[in-house]
Amino acid sequence: MNPKIIKSPQNECIKNAALLKDKKHRSESGRFLVEGIKQVLEISGYWKIDKLFIAENRVALIEQNDLSKICPQIFIVSQNVADKLSSVKTTQGIFAEVEKSSFDIAEVLEKGSRFVLLEKISDPANIAAAIRCADAFAFDAVFVSCGSADIYSDKVLRASVGSFFHLPVIDEIGVLDLLQKARDLSIRIYASSLGASKNIESLRPVGKSMILIGAEAEGLDEETLKAADEVFKIEMFGGAQSLNAACAAAIMMYEFRRKTEIRVF
Amino acid sequence: MNPKIIKSPQNECIKNAALLKDKKHRSESGRFLVEGIKQVLEISGYWKIDKLFIAENRVALIEQNDLSKICPQIFIVSQNVADKLSSVKTTQGIFAEVEKSSFDIAEVLEKGSRFVLLEKISDPANIAAAIRCADAFAFDAVFVSCGSADIYSDKVLRASVGSFFHLPVIDEIGVLDLLQKARDLSIRIYASSLGASKNIESLRPVGKSMILIGAEAEGLDEETLKAADEVFKIEMFGGAQSLNAACAAAIMMYEFRRKTEIRVF
Repeated sequence: MNPKIIKSPQNECIKNAALLKDKKHRSESGRFLVEGIKQVLEISGYWKIDKLFIAENRVALIEQNDLSKICPQIFIVSQNVADKLSSVKTTQGIFAEVEKSSFDIAEVLEKGSRFVLLEKISDPANIAAAIRCADAFAFDAVFVSCGSADIYSDKVLRASVGSFFHLPVIDEIGVLDLLQKARDLSIRIYASSLGASKNIESLRPVGKSMILIGAEAEGLDEETLKAADEVFKIEMFGGAQSLNAACAAAIMMYEFRRKTEIRVF
Repeated sequence: MNPKIIKSPQNECIKNAALLKDKKHRSESGRFLVEGIKQVLEISGYWKIDKLFIAENRVALIEQNDLSKICPQIFIVSQNVADKLSSVKTTQGIFAEVEKSSFDIAEVLEKGSRFVLLEKISDPANIAAAIRCADAFAFDAVFVSCGSADIYSDKVLRASVGSFFHLPVIDEIGVLDLLQKARDLSIRIYASSLGASKNIESLRPVGKSMILIGAEAEGLDEETLKAADEVFKIEMFGGAQSLNAACAAAIMMYEFRRKTEIRVF
């Protein structure tokens, strides 16, 4: 096999793939770009890989990882083309163009038992860290509200270290609508708020549940808080006025996992 | 009062202050630059403010906050000079040039009872988030090892949201030397490691203690792990191979605070 190498950044496929570094084009096309071999190999059944782009000096990756099985359309590209597709300083030279999944929210809520909702979290690193925690603590899905950072950005994908592909992560969520759906399915809704009177340690989750995490400074929207069945705070002692959103999310999810384990095992 | 306004970015004071955006110059001069009114007002007794720089359109801040009390040397600067000093897109127009403190490590260890050591954490956002947790959960100091991100960078200071100034945060720590000092004072050393057999939930802290947190991928150095009295893991269930370092630190510190509270109150 002696495949043709794409050397021009002006090639139509390359131009379209490179545009996916931009949120606007990701939204319009319903696609996103995943960079790096570890990440590409984590892309799971929830998503469909349309094209693979591999730098000419990395073609060995194809056989090593049986890549033709995960995507029949593989393009070999020159280094300058790989650089054009890359979002990092030194690219690993492998990229997947992936179709966004359209998850059926009702189905996700019916099948799973523990969920997290992130409301208006603007820092991609915090979203990624929360996704990792949700994965580590066996949550069944992460919902990300409208007005949050784009979950399909390179920053979120990279910092989630594969966890993004382990569970449904669903964006552009209308919060009140989701909470109504959750209530219809008897999912208990737990919110975190600095102003709560109950301490998270007193949490005793029962049945299906959803945790709501808000932005650092503002917290959850008032309407969102009102829709919660229970509101908890993480007790703080020093001079800190709040925790980093991802740290607060980590502690909430840890506490849930801990309590659920005690009940279940 | 009609103070002179510094309009030239070439002014010696301004040039020196602007150089502090650079790690090398912070190290050489033993100084750092703090930007933003909220941050400046948090600078506490541990640190000495040498100079304040305030944009001419923000001079009202001086009276509003009684700034002449916290620093007698106040310079009013033009907008272009403020922009030169700033590390953000839209500056708040207030900057403090601050002397680094030389903390006496032995004294800090003697006075306090709960400590955190961050080993080779390279992401400033993770260092800042860990400092906020340490502050929130009433730890007495944060030690940051050699080979970590610079704690005096604008990123760490900004993302720590004031917590940096609430407790001693001490950098360039030689880890084995610190652990020897800790042992000499009967401080019990608890490490986190993905490979540990004991779960963090089984932690029962006794007396003075220090938590060791390593980098995400590599974890703690082998020698550091060996020096610990007990090693714990955060149990994970899903496909995530590790947690974000700040999230792991948050959970460890939360668990410590929780257990200590139960013992003490």
